[in-house]
Amino acid sequence: MKNRIRETWAENRPVVNGWLSIPSTVTAEINARAGFDSLTVDLQHGLNDYQSALNLLQIISIGKSAPLVRVPWLEPGIVGKLLDAGAVGLICPMINSAEDAARLVRYALYAPAGERSFGPTRAIMAHGPDYARVANEQIVTLAMVETKQALDELDGIVATSGLTGVYIGPSDLSLSMGYTPKLDPEEPAVVSAIQRILETAKTAGMRAGIHCLSPAYAREMISMGFDLVTVGSDIRILTSATVAALEAVRS
Amino acid sequence: MKNRIRETWAENRPVVNGWLSIPSTVTAEINARAGFDSLTVDLQHGLNDYQSALNLLQIISIGKSAPLVRVPWLEPGIVGKLLDAGAVGLICPMINSAEDAARLVRYALYAPAGERSFGPTRAIMAHGPDYARVANEQIVTLAMVETKQALDELDGIVATSGLTGVYIGPSDLSLSMGYTPKLDPEEPAVVSAIQRILETAKTAGMRAGIHCLSPAYAREMISMGFDLVTVGSDIRILTSATVAALEAVRS
Amino acid sequence: MKNRIRETWAENRPVVNGWLSIPSTVTAEINARAGFDSLTVDLQHGLNDYQSALNLLQIISIGKSAPLVRVPWLEPGIVGKLLDAGAVGLICPMINSAEDAARLVRYALYAPAGERSFGPTRAIMAHGPDYARVANEQIVTLAMVETKQALDELDGIVATSGLTGVYIGPSDLSLSMGYTPKLDPEEPAVVSAIQRILETAKTAGMRAGIHCLSPAYAREMISMGFDLVTVGSDIRILTSATVAALEAVRS
Amino acid sequence: MKNRIRETWAENRPVVNGWLSIPSTVTAEINARAGFDSLTVDLQHGLNDYQSALNLLQIISIGKSAPLVRVPWLEPGIVGKLLDAGAVGLICPMINSAEDAARLVRYALYAPAGERSFGPTRAIMAHGPDYARVANEQIVTLAMVETKQALDELDGIVATSGLTGVYIGPSDLSLSMGYTPKLDPEEPAVVSAIQRILETAKTAGMRAGIHCLSPAYAREMISMGFDLVTVGSDIRILTSATVAALEAVRS
Amino acid sequence: MKNRIRETWAENRPVVNGWLSIPSTVTAEINARAGFDSLTVDLQHGLNDYQSALNLLQIISIGKSAPLVRVPWLEPGIVGKLLDAGAVGLICPMINSAEDAARLVRYALYAPAGERSFGPTRAIMAHGPDYARVANEQIVTLAMVETKQALDELDGIVATSGLTGVYIGPSDLSLSMGYTPKLDPEEPAVVSAIQRILETAKTAGMRAGIHCLSPAYAREMISMGFDLVTVGSDIRILTSATVAALEAVRS
Amino acid sequence: MKNRIRETWAENRPVVNGWLSIPSTVTAEINARAGFDSLTVDLQHGLNDYQSALNLLQIISIGKSAPLVRVPWLEPGIVGKLLDAGAVGLICPMINSAEDAARLVRYALYAPAGERSFGPTRAIMAHGPDYARVANEQIVTLAMVETKQALDELDGIVATSGLTGVYIGPSDLSLSMGYTPKLDPEEPAVVSAIQRILETAKTAGMRAGIHCLSPAYAREMISMGFDLVTVGSDIRILTSATVAALEAVRS
Repeated sequence: MKNRIRETWAENRPVVNGWLSIPSTVTAEINARAGFDSLTVDLQHGLNDYQSALNLLQIISIGKSAPLVRVPWLEPGIVGKLLDAGAVGLICPMINSAEDAARLVRYALYAPAGERSFGPTRAIMAHGPDYARVANEQIVTLAMVETKQALDELDGIVATSGLTGVYIGPSDLSLSMGYTPKLDPEEPAVVSAIQRILETAKTAGMRAGIHCLSPAYAREMISMGFDLVTVGSDIRILTSATVAALEAVRS
Repeated sequence: MKNRIRETWAENRPVVNGWLSIPSTVTAEINARAGFDSLTVDLQHGLNDYQSALNLLQIISIGKSAPLVRVPWLEPGIVGKLLDAGAVGLICPMINSAEDAARLVRYALYAPAGERSFGPTRAIMAHGPDYARVANEQIVTLAMVETKQALDELDGIVATSGLTGVYIGPSDLSLSMGYTPKLDPEEPAVVSAIQRILETAKTAGMRAGIHCLSPAYAREMISMGFDLVTVGSDIRILTSATVAALEAVRS
Repeated sequence: MKNRIRETWAENRPVVNGWLSIPSTVTAEINARAGFDSLTVDLQHGLNDYQSALNLLQIISIGKSAPLVRVPWLEPGIVGKLLDAGAVGLICPMINSAEDAARLVRYALYAPAGERSFGPTRAIMAHGPDYARVANEQIVTLAMVETKQALDELDGIVATSGLTGVYIGPSDLSLSMGYTPKLDPEEPAVVSAIQRILETAKTAGMRAGIHCLSPAYAREMISMGFDLVTVGSDIRILTSATVAALEAVRS
Repeated sequence: MKNRIRETWAENRPVVNGWLSIPSTVTAEINARAGFDSLTVDLQHGLNDYQSALNLLQIISIGKSAPLVRVPWLEPGIVGKLLDAGAVGLICPMINSAEDAARLVRYALYAPAGERSFGPTRAIMAHGPDYARVANEQIVTLAMVETKQALDELDGIVATSGLTGVYIGPSDLSLSMGYTPKLDPEEPAVVSAIQRILETAKTAGMRAGIHCLSPAYAREMISMGFDLVTVGSDIRILTSATVAALEAVRS
Repeated sequence: MKNRIRETWAENRPVVNGWLSIPSTVTAEINARAGFDSLTVDLQHGLNDYQSALNLLQIISIGKSAPLVRVPWLEPGIVGKLLDAGAVGLICPMINSAEDAARLVRYALYAPAGERSFGPTRAIMAHGPDYARVANEQIVTLAMVETKQALDELDGIVATSGLTGVYIGPSDLSLSMGYTPKLDPEEPAVVSAIQRILETAKTAGMRAGIHCLSPAYAREMISMGFDLVTVGSDIRILTSATVAALEAVRS
Repeated sequence: MKNRIRETWAENRPVVNGWLSIPSTVTAEINARAGFDSLTVDLQHGLNDYQSALNLLQIISIGKSAPLVRVPWLEPGIVGKLLDAGAVGLICPMINSAEDAARLVRYALYAPAGERSFGPTRAIMAHGPDYARVANEQIVTLAMVETKQALDELDGIVATSGLTGVYIGPSDLSLSMGYTPKLDPEEPAVVSAIQRILETAKTAGMRAGIHCLSPAYAREMISMGFDLVTVGSDIRILTSATVAALEAVRS
């Protein structure tokens, strides 16, 4: 079993992550062949559920990107199902306390470190016979820090044993702080909160990731020290490019 | 963003709601073109889950009916996913206390009124760019009152800030009160409970809806003062009409 | 292997046939449990193709109805695929000559009677180990007579060796004769053509079926001597009953 | 309504259970026609979710096996949905206390014995009009005992009113006891724990089932007194047989 | 029944056509809401077949674009099925002779103009009760001219009674003329052939369309006098934009 | 672009081919990871059509096996669609004459060698940017010889320019020669016909493949000189192994 996220980090490079919101094996294959370090199947705000996620995780195996998922909620059933389906990393929304973060880790790891139930049906196909032995050290868990409450409890979250890192959701963070929800925020208070999360995570030895929209913002976040940046999403990229093409013909 | 349920109520007309239990875009399109004020995709007792619900919500956009969903259970993940998929109203089963009702509202609304996570992927396609700004005032939340416990806690439920109304499930209500579970109940004790729920809701300034089987019963409920009536379900309508046609040939 | 169509005819009873236009296993199960003698998956004007037809043929196996298909066109590939998927009868549109009818028979039967390729993948699951031996005598082939040209060549069509019977499509027949296309025609010239087809078929020792909409018309056709009548279609039955229910509430 | 599991037990025979991990109606039909006493659609480690489970439950109705499901987690929404879809038995993972077992029973039974919501949409199609009346006595609930904690609380679990029995998951049990997770364990401590669970269950008047891989181990478990044994899984059987066939050609 | 292609032409505006190669209702909805005059579901080189085409045609009904299809081949079965599914226009590949063009028209039109079989199952839902009466005058048929043979027989093709126009496939045309197959060709001989086809068609009173990749080329073709231009395809637009975004982050 | 079939032959090794009849990405992934030299998606007697074939071709890309298809019939539309979807080889049933074989080659190759329409939508994703240039030399075409007529016209078939080889279908061949249709035939006349086809093909410089059931028979055919052997099918392997496992428990 290999996890290209850990390999990329071992080479001191940031992970560039693609985002799959569309439940289509065709759009997934386009992304799987594009060259991302990792690809995340989004089951929260993306238009996927387990069955489409399974299909997309299969398709990601065509290429070399590490397969990640964003789970819809902190719930043990779906966490287990997606790891069994071959995800090597989890992004979990709305981690607002150390207790939430600890639950995420418990759901993701086998005993004695956690309480994940054993039965890696597709994971063992996709990652090989040593899966059971090395899964606990290979799987990546990223806790979304995206509320004022999470900011207040940040020290506890980043101190969670077994957690790999934090992942910032700028839209919810902005909303929670009283601003209009948006990606790639420029609002000084939000930017400052992002910097504080980054520094707190890195000081605690955690990895830090952030959800971005434009390539330019993502590049800036890499410069700032983030270990993982998400760029756009399949649905936003297709929508923008389609509208732009149509306007270009009509102009 | 518009919500035909609120528009209908603003015109002092009752909402006639259709019910989609079949996970088929074809049966959904038949309903979407039939002229209902709203259509509810049922993920509880209906044969739908998220992926089929997404497809049906897309199909409902062909016509003018407001897209509603009945969620399988009071759980934040699925509530958020279905609103992001474009539902403008939620019917939630088994709301048995003011605390349950308050959780439903919190899951359905953005901060500061609630804690819905931001990412209205299809909702913004379907309802337009002002979605984020007006979603909290447009989305309809209906708490199912269908147990003896809910009857006992009715005053608390209807006092829930942000809740739009109650929706009566006659089968479970009958069962909970010790009678055979059935729709369109005539049992005096059940009818009396229905009347009490209606009156309590209206007195508290809440909307009231009820699940009916026959058009005749639904008409009666409208006369009694209900703001929303569901008639039949796709599966019951097709089953009855098919059996009737076959019997008519064989007779 | 059994074919309930042949069993019904052996008991001197007419076959009442249901019609599946909707590609949904749920609407198919409703029909499969309703008690039809046979059920036809329609791949011509119905909204089905091979993959949905396979699923519907599987679902029909839940009940006792004989599984039939209407193929989209007289083409050997799809005829073979649907027989391999378990259909025990074929309705083929637009059979306009004895040559067309002979091709239908050839595509449907194994050598030496025909040239169907051998590989009854699901048929052998559904109909048992004697399938290869008895398929040629059990499979039913019905040639649609629905154009003026077919009327002109009727004697040749009904003389086709191996053909089971004819199946009248009243809409196309009306259209071809210069009338508005409709089911359950009352137009004297069309009714007269229907009678002529029926008599010619029966005289030649062929079975005769007809596509009907209303149970009343179907009953009349049985009285007239038809061996098989189709009543309505899932899509028409659901549409009528849904619109009727909504109107009954609003009235 | 009939439940072949209860019929088999009434004849003093052990239930041989097949296991469906693959979300395919074709592999399910192969199993449905194979002659198992029961078939379990696995939504935990199997690659199924609700929508595929619904399709597989429909297909199981082609044959005579009792339809069971393993739910992904102890959660009322999915328990209710799968019973409404026609499952007559539930296997629930990670039952670690009497309280967990009691919740399973409550979710599975109608009032007054439990709190299952009423709306058996497909169950009533599949099991007949007496479903509502007899469901509580026919449905089988099996609590998975598969952790050290469950071993510690075993007496409480088997004393749960309304529970049908326990079902041993040897992989998780081994893992929880500090051994490599595997099926068909030979490790004396694990074997001893299995025996203790069996005896405790039988003494308390409960049924006992166990998840096996090889037919030989399953036979041994029957000899030991188990009431239900699962053999292999569709995915393991296909994988082994495919690799064996390829090796046999290349050797 | 309305056909936005004919309406656009009636206003003396060129039709800007989008191209759906991806069998996904989500990517289709993005296109359906983008504002194209027409959208073509491609069943030839696109990754669609009938069942996905049906779903995409349903989704196109959400917006105002005219629904077109490119059929896989000149075959009556699939032409009829796609018109019945609601397509109001057909692009047919490899029309190499007047006889081919006449067959396309016959397959697309009802008697007496053609031999399309009657049963507009979804078309009547989507286009209204006057469908049967006006379909022959509303449906658009475009013959692909894309081979040397077609160039040789161009006069016969454009003289076909009932044909709406021609549609140029520059890749196959280039290949057939001995050049590398590509869209937006600049090769003088190919450009000259394109001009000749355009002029011949317009002189004969036919419409002319062309398949383009870039908006710039499409604009140029409009200037040259084409009545319909296709811009890019969903799959090309997504692929280019995804690769560009990733490169922009990594640069 | 690479074709593992041609690579294997270049190394003087026989191709061991797996057979996919089940339309499931899960059973396909099991096969894709098993190590076959090639895998054939069967659209004739297998339970696949275009859309499932597309999904299976995507899944085959996870492993190293060459993706083949058996088309349902000699028809240009489906041949082109499957090559565009990424198949690098075609097995075509019922090639009964040199003319049939020549048509197969024409449908499979680009001009000037053939008349395949250009638009390798997924093929270019799967096989790289040189696809258009090298497809004609890389794609493998295998003509099924499986009737008496084909035996009579064998010399013409194997003389077809551009054809890669023949593929024997023993069931149809047996049936056509008057014997019970079966795989792995031992009937001397059939065995003798198989030998004659093999020798005629090899003498003409053609490759020869054969459809086998048991590994033992496949090994024998390799010894006899066949260049490609198919072993079993996913559906037969799963069925046999499932029944065997169940019998082993019950014995």
